Amino acid sequence: MTRSLAVTKGHGTRNDFVLLDDRDGELELGEGLVRALADRRSGIGCDGVIRLVGTHRLPEGAQSLAEDPRARWFMDYRNADGSLAQMCGNGVRVVARFAERLGLWDGTGTWAVGTRAGVRYVTRVACPTGAQEEWYAVDMGPWHLPGGAESSAAGSDAQVEVKGLDTARPALRVDLGNPHTVLALADPAELEAADLGSAPVVSPLAPEGTNVELVVPLGERTTAEGTVGVVRMRVHERGVGETQSCGTGACAAAMAVRTWMGAEAPESWLVEVPGGVVGVRLLPEDRVELSGPAELVATVTVDLDALLDGDERV
Amino acid sequence: MTRSLAVTKGHGTRNDFVLLDDRDGELELGEGLVRALADRRSGIGCDGVIRLVGTHRLPEGAQSLAEDPRARWFMDYRNADGSLAQMCGNGVRVVARFAERLGLWDGTGTWAVGTRAGVRYVTRVACPTGAQEEWYAVDMGPWHLPGGAESSAAGSDAQVEVKGLDTARPALRVDLGNPHTVLALADPAELEAADLGSAPVVSPLAPEGTNVELVVPLGERTTAEGTVGVVRMRVHERGVGETQSCGTGACAAAMAVRTWMGAEAPESWLVEVPGGVVGVRLLPEDRVELSGPAELVATVTVDLDALLDGDERV
Repeated sequence: MTRSLAVTKGHGTRNDFVLLDDRDGELELGEGLVRALADRRSGIGCDGVIRLVGTHRLPEGAQSLAEDPRARWFMDYRNADGSLAQMCGNGVRVVARFAERLGLWDGTGTWAVGTRAGVRYVTRVACPTGAQEEWYAVDMGPWHLPGGAESSAAGSDAQVEVKGLDTARPALRVDLGNPHTVLALADPAELEAADLGSAPVVSPLAPEGTNVELVVPLGERTTAEGTVGVVRMRVHERGVGETQSCGTGACAAAMAVRTWMGAEAPESWLVEVPGGVVGVRLLPEDRVELSGPAELVATVTVDLDALLDGDERV
Repeated sequence: MTRSLAVTKGHGTRNDFVLLDDRDGELELGEGLVRALADRRSGIGCDGVIRLVGTHRLPEGAQSLAEDPRARWFMDYRNADGSLAQMCGNGVRVVARFAERLGLWDGTGTWAVGTRAGVRYVTRVACPTGAQEEWYAVDMGPWHLPGGAESSAAGSDAQVEVKGLDTARPALRVDLGNPHTVLALADPAELEAADLGSAPVVSPLAPEGTNVELVVPLGERTTAEGTVGVVRMRVHERGVGETQSCGTGACAAAMAVRTWMGAEAPESWLVEVPGGVVGVRLLPEDRVELSGPAELVATVTVDLDALLDGDERV
């Protein structure tokens, strides 16, 4: 008899996930199984494994229920190395689409989902680029400038050296629950010339490190929703390297450009990341909304015996 | 209505494939679909896509049928970039296991399969490492030393510089239908110290380039099948970079070490590649057999609309 496991493969702007329907909390999701599923050659392959589980089935879920009893489902997110993770801006969109697919959300109103970083709220929105895609918007919480009004007025409070660019550039630190440092480049050619194969050198550098966003403002565009700013970016995530998409990084990029533009800046932004396009919108009380596509590409039946056949040496 | 496609994900020593059962030759497998399936983030992810198709359904198949009418099935192998490929030593094992799973081969005797490099013959063999694995053996065709008896006597006919190693090393050129250059290192520590992030510098270098194998002989071992030589290796594939496993490279590594050992050398070898262990055995008429595991990890239903949702710019 073969032991099998049903999973779904999905991605949001090429940040990809293996999704597990564990509504009744019956699945033992050990580190070894996460790593085996996430292995891109001997497994299914993903940046992270997300188990959707009834909130009341997890100790961490109890906090989400206390915070908001509407959060009936919990997003148990694991990094590809098997470790626990707090949250993922692209992952929460994909898990919302997964919940819809499973019939756990009807796609209307607001869907509350528990995460280790607190309850997140997802809504379905029209795709602002006009493409025939399902987009999902997530309230990512508050943003602020660690340097305060002073760095806002100066437009910068750090310096960043990037391989492939001639000189160190002024940059602006932006906090979105995690640290970002954003620098503007002259044009798309300079953005392409940057070499993010090694980490940019940031000074001053906080002990916890920083994600670094290279951005090129591309002006404004008129959409059905009104005027939006457009930004192209690349991102180096601390501890990871260059990635195709970073949800909080896109938010930080838009907020930095907004700061540089001053009073005339639009409140809504389209941010081109290497993996696609996401939307960023300023909400009341200095909160930020991230929106973007979420694709469920395949349903997969994993043969657990074949998956867990260990590597061996002679 | 969603358009879907059923595929299987498998690998041989971490060389991984998306397999398609197209026994009646009804599938239109365009370059775009191959690339989308092979994409490790927005698709399923693999080194190559293999379509198993009735030999009589393909023009290339007619050559295989003429060569051997027992070759009722054809391995239509595509590289991840969508281009056609000749053959793949790890892939042919995985496709043999796939044929068994589909009931197209009963696992006994020899299974003949057409490829663009001619008909290949696969048999099931016992796993020589004693692990509970299904192993498959494939006749890889003839090997020879391009340098002939002279380089056999000298033990080398090339020089290779590898980043991370102090000096250029003597090396032996070995041909297995494709070109290889094999150099021996002192011990496993030196093997680990080698940096294959850039291509080794080979001189003289033939215009078609060469794969480079770094090998460490690890002595002999007694198995149920008799005495076998053991070799650990890493490989840099021309045009690709370092890989986890290279079937012809493992054969070249064993044949080089065999040449260096002279008359006392065993005829059977176990070769540790980064992705696992394979077996290499000398056959009559200077032919070489490659054996190793083949795993079918998952059956996958791909949502073609979600898969082919193109990237977009704003």
